Amino acid sequence: MSESKTQKLMEVSTKPASGFRDFLGLEAKKRSELISTIERTYESFGFEKIETPSLENIEVLLGSGGQDNEKLIFKILKRGEKLLEILEKGENQETDLADLGLRFDLTVPLCRLVAEYRDKIALPWKTFHIAPVWRAERAQRGRYREFLQCDVDIVGAGGIGAELEVIQAVVKAFANLGVNEIELHLNHRGIIEALADKFGFGEKKQAFAILLDKRDKLSAEKFESALNDLSGAKAPTELLEILGGKSKASDFEKLAPEAYKQIFEIEEALSRLSLGLKDVKFNPSLVRGMGYYTGMVFEVMHASEGLALGGGGRYDKLIGRFSKRDIPAVGFSLGFERLLLLLEKTKEASSGLRRIFIPVFDEKLRVAVLKLAAELRDHGIECDVYPDADKLKSQLKFASQKNYRWVLMAGEDEIQSREFKIKDFSTGEEESVAQGHLPNHFKRLFSLV
Amino acid sequence: MSESKTQKLMEVSTKPASGFRDFLGLEAKKRSELISTIERTYESFGFEKIETPSLENIEVLLGSGGQDNEKLIFKILKRGEKLLEILEKGENQETDLADLGLRFDLTVPLCRLVAEYRDKIALPWKTFHIAPVWRAERAQRGRYREFLQCDVDIVGAGGIGAELEVIQAVVKAFANLGVNEIELHLNHRGIIEALADKFGFGEKKQAFAILLDKRDKLSAEKFESALNDLSGAKAPTELLEILGGKSKASDFEKLAPEAYKQIFEIEEALSRLSLGLKDVKFNPSLVRGMGYYTGMVFEVMHASEGLALGGGGRYDKLIGRFSKRDIPAVGFSLGFERLLLLLEKTKEASSGLRRIFIPVFDEKLRVAVLKLAAELRDHGIECDVYPDADKLKSQLKFASQKNYRWVLMAGEDEIQSREFKIKDFSTGEEESVAQGHLPNHFKRLFSLV
Repeated sequence: MSESKTQKLMEVSTKPASGFRDFLGLEAKKRSELISTIERTYESFGFEKIETPSLENIEVLLGSGGQDNEKLIFKILKRGEKLLEILEKGENQETDLADLGLRFDLTVPLCRLVAEYRDKIALPWKTFHIAPVWRAERAQRGRYREFLQCDVDIVGAGGIGAELEVIQAVVKAFANLGVNEIELHLNHRGIIEALADKFGFGEKKQAFAILLDKRDKLSAEKFESALNDLSGAKAPTELLEILGGKSKASDFEKLAPEAYKQIFEIEEALSRLSLGLKDVKFNPSLVRGMGYYTGMVFEVMHASEGLALGGGGRYDKLIGRFSKRDIPAVGFSLGFERLLLLLEKTKEASSGLRRIFIPVFDEKLRVAVLKLAAELRDHGIECDVYPDADKLKSQLKFASQKNYRWVLMAGEDEIQSREFKIKDFSTGEEESVAQGHLPNHFKRLFSLV
Repeated sequence: MSESKTQKLMEVSTKPASGFRDFLGLEAKKRSELISTIERTYESFGFEKIETPSLENIEVLLGSGGQDNEKLIFKILKRGEKLLEILEKGENQETDLADLGLRFDLTVPLCRLVAEYRDKIALPWKTFHIAPVWRAERAQRGRYREFLQCDVDIVGAGGIGAELEVIQAVVKAFANLGVNEIELHLNHRGIIEALADKFGFGEKKQAFAILLDKRDKLSAEKFESALNDLSGAKAPTELLEILGGKSKASDFEKLAPEAYKQIFEIEEALSRLSLGLKDVKFNPSLVRGMGYYTGMVFEVMHASEGLALGGGGRYDKLIGRFSKRDIPAVGFSLGFERLLLLLEKTKEASSGLRRIFIPVFDEKLRVAVLKLAAELRDHGIECDVYPDADKLKSQLKFASQKNYRWVLMAGEDEIQSREFKIKDFSTGEEESVAQGHLPNHFKRLFSLV
């Protein structure tokens, strides 16, 4: 029946689609452990978990201030009669063909959610959201089309207490993940506005900000020439010096007093908080892409690797796009894939599997073995029973491929006598243990690993 | 800057797209807890976690034996020049417009993955996969377009040991979730083939199986009349009786000897395993939708609610679709959304939040409070600090909305004297505790909840 239906399609590639990834073995396990650590950290601060759909109505995603990312939305083809109708017309536009899109970040869905459940949510609201996002990037090494974001946000708090606590939570999450060499880079959108005004980009603020955001990706020459193009003249040396890092936040005390005050207060509070940050740096050219930021923006860098591990900022106007009134908000998005890259470099994958392997000597013993394994699991001991009828040799080969150290020998005699041999693969030694003592025996073995 | 960019789009609906859902508060927390429980259970059996991409090349999903589900694929519109080219041609077909699709189940991606990483995977391989799937169903109550599946599979084992262990793991997962009134329904595709042959549906096996699969959704009359239509004559009374439950597996000993043998052996082993199942029932009309099953099929029902909580079976030919050779496999997919529905009915959401609330009496104390909270978290105590500058009254209202029971009063005097007042909201009582004793004090309080 199934053969007639499932065609043999040998020409179908078994690779994941271009820009997408499969995870198995230790890699999948590691991803899972990191997610748990981040979740536990954010929960320990009282942040509440949310989930939103992968797909949003396309109008929610478009015009959300996601800038370039809006061009990268994976759009869902309309279905059924709606699609037929459009196809029959013939003169179809891209915009007519799709009604849904995969989210490109977690901030836009969060803002929609806050607007929708405004009555249910007590403000200020601390929340976190760990989920994949999708961007139709050109596939290239290290750039993926589906990747995990870990966002933490405080909604409804306008003071710098919100920035401080988001930063505290993020730095703690990194510490719990074993990442300690952290630098925090700070800026304020008010600084960028002031620079744009002072140096004559007032009419072209948006383009000025976008250019600053790309500064890291351009050579000094290319950046300067793009800046000249934008200003329509030679860009002032003073501006180039400021952007080149030759300025302190205090230089902006008069130019952007409110922005300066916030940066000053946050820097001062961070130094008292002793979070263990390697450095806190003011960086007047830090923009953080998204058009929706309105105040502080920040980025976390790994000090020695020079790798950006995530960033965020204040977006006081984005919720208002969906709602009758603006609600202030601050968030940070941790770059999960970058983090994994870093941890692969700095840490070896954990081995030392704390689980027992039980071969099945004879099929007629399988039920007894499955029962024994269930009893051990009830005592918190993880057991892997070999699931097929195979020679003992193949079963033990399987155990060694899976890096199991301890094998519980459960032959007919052992099951009868309720006295089992435990073999240690790493030493070749065997010892006999009575059934009733197995759980404690294994707990002791595991505690020594 | 952001205001000019993020348009106010009051006409954009803030509801999730039709058939999709948001989760927040206790509901999100509960989903997360259930997933952890399922993961821990499967890991305790030695099943390894995998992740596959949400999107697959459309060829992978089509013709995979997913039957009706293939019609429900959300397809991704092609992008950039590829799309323009097709749109310019004008005479576009649905199939030309899409290159990717959202997965409709987790079994098809698993089979692709096994074929791709065949060299890395030691067989037999025990694996699990917990992730959302998408189906463009007509939106209706209780039917969602994005929902979570929890699959557990054994790949590369041809004997009934694989079926037994998958069933054991699934029943244990339900038990760990607090669901104990479980019935297991069994059938074998060989029984359905034999029925089709015996009663003259040999040429229409596929249609016969599809009709049986729909039997539960049709009235007895409608089912009989559809069966008559398919056979081109009045359907034999004997067949109707068999399908109506008037038969035992042993009736098939001669008609489908191999299928009978497997059912018999599995029933016998299950009775010895004492999994605590309420009942194990042979059901000759159980098909389990997907066209890719080749042997045993099973379904788990909640005994008193009559709710199907998931199902699975053996699919020995599906991996071969992607690979040079067939690899046998057995899997079970747990219906996460049904499970939630059931647990909402039978259990109250857990309250008793084991977390401390700390208000901020004055902004100048914020850094001291954040440091105090960090110290408590380092001792494993979860703390929620109020993140904004607000009146104490608003802060305490917030704490009560979030159901916090204990409030740590950290005013200037307390911070100076390192002696804090703890207020119990449920009794109104206060007590003083020295800073060094706070962690143990809270641990004792939490242990009493």
